[in-house]
Amino acid sequence: MDLITVKDIYKDRDKYMDREVTLGGWVRSVRDSKTFGFIVLHDGSFFETMQIVYSDSMDNFTQISKLNVGAAILVTGTLVATPQAKQPFEIQAREILVEGESAPDYPLQKKRHSLEYLRTISHLRPRTNTFQAVFRVRSLIAYAIHKFFQERGFVYVHTPLITGSDCEGAGEMFRVTTLDLENLPRTEDGKVDYTRDFFNKETSLTVSGQLNGETYAQAFRSIYTFGPTFRAENSNTTRHAAEFWMIEPEMAFADLEDNMALAEAMLKYVIRYVMEEAPEEMKFFNSFVDKGLLERLQGVVNADFAHVTYTEAIEILEKVNDKFEYKVSWGCDLQTEHERYLTEQVYKRPVFVTDYPKEIKAFYMKLNEDGRTVAAMDCLVPGIGEIIGGSQREDSYDRLTARMEELGLKPEDYEFYLDLRKYGSTRHSGFGLGFERCVMYLTGMGNIRDVIPFPRTVNNCEL
Amino acid sequence: MDLITVKDIYKDRDKYMDREVTLGGWVRSVRDSKTFGFIVLHDGSFFETMQIVYSDSMDNFTQISKLNVGAAILVTGTLVATPQAKQPFEIQAREILVEGESAPDYPLQKKRHSLEYLRTISHLRPRTNTFQAVFRVRSLIAYAIHKFFQERGFVYVHTPLITGSDCEGAGEMFRVTTLDLENLPRTEDGKVDYTRDFFNKETSLTVSGQLNGETYAQAFRSIYTFGPTFRAENSNTTRHAAEFWMIEPEMAFADLEDNMALAEAMLKYVIRYVMEEAPEEMKFFNSFVDKGLLERLQGVVNADFAHVTYTEAIEILEKVNDKFEYKVSWGCDLQTEHERYLTEQVYKRPVFVTDYPKEIKAFYMKLNEDGRTVAAMDCLVPGIGEIIGGSQREDSYDRLTARMEELGLKPEDYEFYLDLRKYGSTRHSGFGLGFERCVMYLTGMGNIRDVIPFPRTVNNCEL
Repeated sequence: MDLITVKDIYKDRDKYMDREVTLGGWVRSVRDSKTFGFIVLHDGSFFETMQIVYSDSMDNFTQISKLNVGAAILVTGTLVATPQAKQPFEIQAREILVEGESAPDYPLQKKRHSLEYLRTISHLRPRTNTFQAVFRVRSLIAYAIHKFFQERGFVYVHTPLITGSDCEGAGEMFRVTTLDLENLPRTEDGKVDYTRDFFNKETSLTVSGQLNGETYAQAFRSIYTFGPTFRAENSNTTRHAAEFWMIEPEMAFADLEDNMALAEAMLKYVIRYVMEEAPEEMKFFNSFVDKGLLERLQGVVNADFAHVTYTEAIEILEKVNDKFEYKVSWGCDLQTEHERYLTEQVYKRPVFVTDYPKEIKAFYMKLNEDGRTVAAMDCLVPGIGEIIGGSQREDSYDRLTARMEELGLKPEDYEFYLDLRKYGSTRHSGFGLGFERCVMYLTGMGNIRDVIPFPRTVNNCEL
Repeated sequence: MDLITVKDIYKDRDKYMDREVTLGGWVRSVRDSKTFGFIVLHDGSFFETMQIVYSDSMDNFTQISKLNVGAAILVTGTLVATPQAKQPFEIQAREILVEGESAPDYPLQKKRHSLEYLRTISHLRPRTNTFQAVFRVRSLIAYAIHKFFQERGFVYVHTPLITGSDCEGAGEMFRVTTLDLENLPRTEDGKVDYTRDFFNKETSLTVSGQLNGETYAQAFRSIYTFGPTFRAENSNTTRHAAEFWMIEPEMAFADLEDNMALAEAMLKYVIRYVMEEAPEEMKFFNSFVDKGLLERLQGVVNADFAHVTYTEAIEILEKVNDKFEYKVSWGCDLQTEHERYLTEQVYKRPVFVTDYPKEIKAFYMKLNEDGRTVAAMDCLVPGIGEIIGGSQREDSYDRLTARMEELGLKPEDYEFYLDLRKYGSTRHSGFGLGFERCVMYLTGMGNIRDVIPFPRTVNNCEL
C-alpha cells in the first residue's frame, strides 16, 4: 500500500504541504458537528498524532462520525498548515475508508488508565501514549547498543540459552526438558533418567553468557552478547523479572580502567542517541512519568564519572551510618541506599566503585595484589544505584583454580574456561548491563513489568 | 591499554606508517633463524594477520623463538612498508612481551583441522580462519538486519521466550519448569500439579514470536522481532538446531505485495552490507568453502526477484516430474528439490511462490477469494531453496474463527489474537527468516553446527 506516515510528515513537512496524501492509522478520538468533524489519528510511526478534518460532503459522513476509539481507517486528503491552531498542520480529508471497526467494548477509552489495569491487557497497551513511548525507546536503546559496539569493531556473539552447565547457580535456574513429567523414565536406582532427555543430560536456561563470551573475546579480542537471560528467583518486586535481556561485552587485552572507560562511553552514547532520536517520547517521560529525568540524563552525559574504591567508599559511608537502614562496615555488600547516597549526595554524578572484597564477588574476578580485594567495578547512577557490574577477569590459571577450590567449585566442570588461561591467556575485562534496568533508567518507568512487552514474573506468564 | 589493532592499520595505513605502534595478539606461527625471526600475529580485529620481525637484539629472543602457536604477546615496533613481499607491511619489533604462553598441548596447530574435530572444541575454534570468518560475518548480518529495519522506522520488539501457550505446536516444545522432578507435587487425582510451578501453570519455550509480534504491529504499524526460538525436534540433520534465532517483521496496512517487497529489499540490503564490510571474509568463503558464492550473491543483489503462484509452479514442475524423487501434484508441499529447480533452473534467480493451498499452511493466513488458497509467500533462492516464509494474515474475525474451528483450535485460547481483529483490524503481513539459514546462505557453510557459536542439537549441549 502506498501510504505516507505521520512521521514522514513531521520529518519533512515541506515535501507534503498542500499535497494530497494517504495515511493509515487508528482513531484516538472523533468529534463531529452537523456538517463536519475532527479525528485524532495515530498511525504508530510517530509519537504525535495527526488531526483529520472531514465533512458531510462524504457519503459515509455518518459512519465516520460513529467510529469508536481504536478503529482503523485510511484517510486521503490534503495536508494544510494551521498556524493558528495547537497542532502545526492537519489533513483535510477527501475520502475516509474504514479498514477495521472497533467493537463497542474496546478496553482503551480516551480517559487515562492505570498502569496496573494496562498490565492486564498487554496485547493492547502498546496503543497508549505511555507504552508507545516506552517501547519505541526500548527499541532505540537496543539499537544504540548494537551501533555503539559495532562502530568499535566488537563482534556480536549469540551465547546459548539452553545450558548443560549447572555451574552458574543452579538453585535459581529453570529446568528445560522434553521428558514426560507424568511418566518420568527412571534409572535402576529410581532417579530420573536424564539420559533419556532431549540433550541426554540435565539442562537449564542460562543466567549469564559471560563464560561463553570470554571464549570469543580470546579469539575476536572485543565481543558483546545481547540476549535473554533467566532467573527463577521467587522475588515479586518492581525490579525482578524471570526473563530479561542482558548485554555483556568482553575485551581481551583490557584491564579494569579500559572496562570502566567502555561502560562510561556506552552509557553516554546510548543516552545521547535516545535524546536525539526520540525527543517527543523523552519530553513525555519528563512531563508525565519522572520530572527531572532529562536534567538527570543530561547530567550523566556531561559529567566525567567519579571513581572511588570500595574501601574509600566504606570510610565515607561509615561516617553517616545513622542515615541508613543497613549499617555499613568493610566486608559488607552495598545496598541500594548506600549506592544512591554515594552517587546522589557525595558525587552528584555517576561513580564507579572498584576493588570490592573478594568474598562478596564472583570467583572469576581478578585478585588484587592486596590478596583481599578483586578488580571489580560497579557503576552507580543517580536515581537508581547500580546499573552496571563488571570486573577484570582472573587470567592466571593457578590463581583461578586455587580460588575455585577455596569456594568448593570443581575445576573439571570449568575445563573450557580454564583452557583460556592455558592457551594464550590475556588480561581481559567485561561487564554486564541489565537491559530492562537500562530502559527503566532512561524512561523513568518504575516497574520492570512496564518496560517488557510481555513480562514473565512469579505466577505470571500471560500471552 | 593503549593498543592499535591490525584492523586500524589495514584501514588507515598511512596514519601509522613508519611510526611506532603497540599491538596485542596471538601467535599463529613463529620461524626463527640464528639472529632474527618472524611471527605471524592475529589480533582478532581483522581477518588478515600481521607479520612481525624480531631480532636477537632483544633480551628475550630465545623465549620468543620458543613460543607455541596460540601464545598471547604484546609487540611494540615500527610499521614499515614491504613492497617486495607478499604482505603489504610488517612490524619491526623493538620489544615483545609475553602476555600468556600457550601450553604444548594446544589443540590448534598450524595444519588444517576438520570441521568435525573443531566442533569438539567450540571454545577454541573461533581462533581459526574459518570460524573467524563465520562468526564475524554472523555478527555483521545481525547488525545489518537491525540497521535495515531501524532505518525504515520498524520497532524492535522482544517477544517472550517462555510461553504459557501450548497453541504453537506443543509436541515439539521444550518444557520449562522449576518443579523438583525427583519429587513432583501431585494434584488429588495424581496428575503433576503445575499450580506449584514457577508460573503457576505449564510453560514452554517459544517456537515463534509472530502472534505476539502482531499485537505490536497493530500499535506501532511496523515492527520486527529478532530473538531465539526453540524446536525440540528429534532431527539430527545439517539444518536443524534445537535453539536458533529468528527475525519476524510484521506490518500493519501491508498486503502480500508489500511483504514480498520488504523481504526482497532486506535480503539485498544484508548481502550488500556484508560484501562491503567483510570483503576479506567473503573472499575466503568463495575460495575455500563454496566456490561460486560471490557470483551467486551478486546475482541476488542485481536481480528482480521472480513471482509465480503455487498453482503455476505446480504446472511447471509437473512437466518435469521424472526429475524428482517426490512427484508433485496440486496440494502437495514443495520439497527442497522442487524449490531449487524453480529458482535455479526455471528462473535462475530468487523467486517468490505465492498463494499456497490453505491445507498446507498455517491457520492465520489470509484466505484468498478462491476459497482454497491463502495469501502466503515463500522466497526461494538458488543454492538453498526456501529462505523466507511469510503471509498476509487473516484480518477478518469471522473467517479466522471459522478456520480455527475447522482445524479444531479453540478460539478461547487465542482471545488476545482475535482481539486484534475486533478492535481496529487492518490488512497486515509479515514473514519469518531463520537467522542461521541466512548465515549459511551468505557464507556457504553447509552445517548449521558451524554457524552457531555453541550449537544445541539432539544429544548435544556442550559448554
